[in-house]
Amino acid sequence: MDYAKESLKRHQAWKGKIEIVATVPVESREDLSLAYTPGVAEPCLAIRDDVSKSYELTRRWNMCLVVTDGTAVLGLGDIGPEAGMPVMEGKCVLFKTFGDVDAFPMCIKSKNVDEIVDTIYQISGSFGGVNLEDIAAPRCFEIESKLKERCDIPIFHDDQHGTAVVTLAGLTNALKLVGKKKEDVKVVMNGAGAAAIAIAKLLLSCGFADITLCDRDGAIYAGRTTHMNAVKEEIAKASNKKKAAGSLADMLAGADIFIGVSAPGAVTAEMVRAMNKDAIVFACANPTPEIFPEDAHAGGAKVVATGRSDFPNQVNNVLAFPGIFRGTFDVRASDINDEMKIAAANALAGLISEDELCPEYIIPQAFDPRVGPAVAKAVAKAAKMSGVARI
Amino acid sequence: MDYAKESLKRHQAWKGKIEIVATVPVESREDLSLAYTPGVAEPCLAIRDDVSKSYELTRRWNMCLVVTDGTAVLGLGDIGPEAGMPVMEGKCVLFKTFGDVDAFPMCIKSKNVDEIVDTIYQISGSFGGVNLEDIAAPRCFEIESKLKERCDIPIFHDDQHGTAVVTLAGLTNALKLVGKKKEDVKVVMNGAGAAAIAIAKLLLSCGFADITLCDRDGAIYAGRTTHMNAVKEEIAKASNKKKAAGSLADMLAGADIFIGVSAPGAVTAEMVRAMNKDAIVFACANPTPEIFPEDAHAGGAKVVATGRSDFPNQVNNVLAFPGIFRGTFDVRASDINDEMKIAAANALAGLISEDELCPEYIIPQAFDPRVGPAVAKAVAKAAKMSGVARI
Repeated sequence: MDYAKESLKRHQAWKGKIEIVATVPVESREDLSLAYTPGVAEPCLAIRDDVSKSYELTRRWNMCLVVTDGTAVLGLGDIGPEAGMPVMEGKCVLFKTFGDVDAFPMCIKSKNVDEIVDTIYQISGSFGGVNLEDIAAPRCFEIESKLKERCDIPIFHDDQHGTAVVTLAGLTNALKLVGKKKEDVKVVMNGAGAAAIAIAKLLLSCGFADITLCDRDGAIYAGRTTHMNAVKEEIAKASNKKKAAGSLADMLAGADIFIGVSAPGAVTAEMVRAMNKDAIVFACANPTPEIFPEDAHAGGAKVVATGRSDFPNQVNNVLAFPGIFRGTFDVRASDINDEMKIAAANALAGLISEDELCPEYIIPQAFDPRVGPAVAKAVAKAAKMSGVARI
Repeated sequence: MDYAKESLKRHQAWKGKIEIVATVPVESREDLSLAYTPGVAEPCLAIRDDVSKSYELTRRWNMCLVVTDGTAVLGLGDIGPEAGMPVMEGKCVLFKTFGDVDAFPMCIKSKNVDEIVDTIYQISGSFGGVNLEDIAAPRCFEIESKLKERCDIPIFHDDQHGTAVVTLAGLTNALKLVGKKKEDVKVVMNGAGAAAIAIAKLLLSCGFADITLCDRDGAIYAGRTTHMNAVKEEIAKASNKKKAAGSLADMLAGADIFIGVSAPGAVTAEMVRAMNKDAIVFACANPTPEIFPEDAHAGGAKVVATGRSDFPNQVNNVLAFPGIFRGTFDVRASDINDEMKIAAANALAGLISEDELCPEYIIPQAFDPRVGPAVAKAVAKAAKMSGVARI
């Protein structure tokens, strides 16, 4: 099927993929007096006296804002706020279908960090949480961290953390398969965008000890002078402890794991061949991976994952965000912290039993009905354990 | 029934009055590839190339923002943004039920005009129109006019214009009943808030010639020095051409029509007695009117309307806003102008035939199923005639 052509046709017929429905009847004067005036004054006053009641008397407890500035939509770049809306609506459909979360799609005209932060902060009282989407790096980092500071609801940039959670889940199972430990493996990443930084941070946070990121200039190390920015400086200090310098190919020699969130064709079978035995290759550039699975296997890789649904082991965010928000909302968590992300990854990995585990099946399928509930349960528990649950 | 107590109980059980549902299936990989990646890139690119396609490829064509700052919620005053949300959700229920409009409830934290305007402007690309709600005067006027300048979608402050439309509809029928003409009658209003100003402007716009507004200092006239503001100055110049000064009682002597959007008990039977024969009294203070119907009738009033559902002739905004937005969205109008408001009022008035018309039935009932479609049709037509329709 020509997905592009068919999708446009469907979108023309659909005229939108979400709808807002009323869940209470208004068929009589009495209905009107209870759902609206004069009766509605009473729940209003209850919230005036205790703002936390907004989670009990309005839809806030289940309402997620899905918001973009249109600057990094899919692989299309800066296509403008309105043009990002088909993706935002699609995301809202996935939130509802896989997590029973009410999600509302929105685009912001500004590309200025502080204007975007101000806008989302101003409307944050209407929502239980915020999912940032398709905002270009490095602005997305600043926007997320400023929002976390100002808002009292969880802020989650799915392009970062959703990807990181699913990647961690896949790596966890891949390491089981090859019998290596996260503390011992050498991880080399390619890419220094939103997803790469978030993956590196989450891996470091949960015990991976040896990680080196590369960009077009090769290995990123503390003190490098070319093409650096604040985010790269920060990750350079936390990773690549030996301050190794060199090309991606140099770095991959003797590595155990490659994680690509970068550009098509960045890795060759030769480069994989230089990796350690039982190499793990996550080539997640989309739609064309850094290296195709058959080439990676030809180079000796034992386990290969990509971002595509037509190969085994798809790193697909839909495995994470619906359940993460479901669990977060279930306990009214004030934040989505590393403990919750790691719990989500472990829950995902744990869905594949030791009997089932094999190089072609390290990550659950997107349509596995156990995924959403398992992730939600683990996330809610981790929120409670880490002290961010509010109910 | 104790509406306050019962409404709180219902709201606790409802946990919100709206829900966001997915209108497209995601049950297979193919569904996912069409509603989301990779297929969704194609409608995104179509909108990038022509932003107006956002009305065809996303839900924007039917999406209304219902937004407050929580400063004038019902009669409760400034109760805070979150506390206004039960009303906003209720409004969204009415939008859907009576106009099949998707409406999304939102509150803004700021009480600053420019911050509110900036926030709504920034997110306006996500919506087909904006309904401002329960924002205190005189800020509401400035917010509305600044938004109209900056946004390319219709901006409508229902507390002003919805009330004005239904009032005009009722007056139109009341004048038919008493055999007087709008050009000849003397109208006296009490109140100088959002609704009062909007009613006065709309009446002037459609041909009422003699209107005087009063506030706590009595008649408002050009050059008055006490308790004036920019909005009162403006309306003073357009109304009260004789620059009459005096109390509300003074003004009512010899008046044909009283319209109150002010305070309980502001008018006595004595004051009505001093009005002209066949006096028309719209006492819309809520829940306690300026004068109760039986007292107004005792004072000689021929036709009496209030804001309450337990008396005849309820001036209820729900008669107007769902149909107005339905008609506006149907032709993708860029504005909701006076022509469209007057058309809505005429459509409402016209639903009552000459045979049916009587002092107790000058305004259609809220649940009359003809109301929404009739208003929508008239508004769409007026939008086309006045050149603001875009399809």
